[in-house]
Amino acid sequence: MTLNAIQDAYAPLFSHCFGCGSANPHGHRLRSYLKGSETVATFVPEAKYSSGIADNVYGGLIAALLDCHGTASAAAFCQRSERDNGAACPQLPRFVTASLNVNFKRPTPLGPELQLKGTLLSLVGRKALIGLELSANGEVCVAGEMLAIRLVNS
Amino acid sequence: MTLNAIQDAYAPLFSHCFGCGSANPHGHRLRSYLKGSETVATFVPEAKYSSGIADNVYGGLIAALLDCHGTASAAAFCQRSERDNGAACPQLPRFVTASLNVNFKRPTPLGPELQLKGTLLSLVGRKALIGLELSANGEVCVAGEMLAIRLVNS
Repeated sequence: MTLNAIQDAYAPLFSHCFGCGSANPHGHRLRSYLKGSETVATFVPEAKYSSGIADNVYGGLIAALLDCHGTASAAAFCQRSERDNGAACPQLPRFVTASLNVNFKRPTPLGPELQLKGTLLSLVGRKALIGLELSANGEVCVAGEMLAIRLVNS
Repeated sequence: MTLNAIQDAYAPLFSHCFGCGSANPHGHRLRSYLKGSETVATFVPEAKYSSGIADNVYGGLIAALLDCHGTASAAAFCQRSERDNGAACPQLPRFVTASLNVNFKRPTPLGPELQLKGTLLSLVGRKALIGLELSANGEVCVAGEMLAIRLVNS
């Protein structure tokens, strides 16, 4: 079975993000997938995305990847929850970031594929709390937590 | 008086950052300045750095700007503190991010110049806690807090 990327299901109005929007031709185009009880994504940064110290990934890109993966995770978990409760929810909701906390546990090596993981910590009304991890070479390099809020019109 | 950018004083070994490194020809080259009790920087994002919703700045870029401005702020505040205590501290120390918390208070408009501000909340040993703000059109759009740690060899 081929999984569909969460971001590809955003309404066109909400698809302009540099990090993950299908309507942004210049961006990273991160693609996240709902897989069981988690969301997953992979990304291989270009060599230019170095931190101050060469051979490590720039913290700004890491925060950006967590941000895009987190809002996508919130949308997918919310849609699944609504469907589990009997709603049709044909259009993927759009969440935006209220707050993002990023803990850099160890340097993230620049070169290998990065793996992102999202888990749903809570979903109450329009607010979703998402746990995030970024790993490389089988080690968790960064842990994060995002509070995402569903846009009223989505 | 012309102020010198903090990032231009990083040792070459620590100048590769995509966000602010003088040795990275592809990056944003954010430049931060120590001005009285604050650090300041300005940045005008290119149009491609849209959030999911067009006309707002992408959260990943915002986090990246805070990240670079925060570590630069930590370095400058630390160097000033050491000099105030009588040390020569000829080489700017290099701080890296341990954790970054970003609170998105309102959408950041894409187009106008963004203003960044950093303040020193605490400096104990190798750890600096930095308060951060990003404003546009005179309004604070984003508030953040960073725990930065001084590299042992810097």
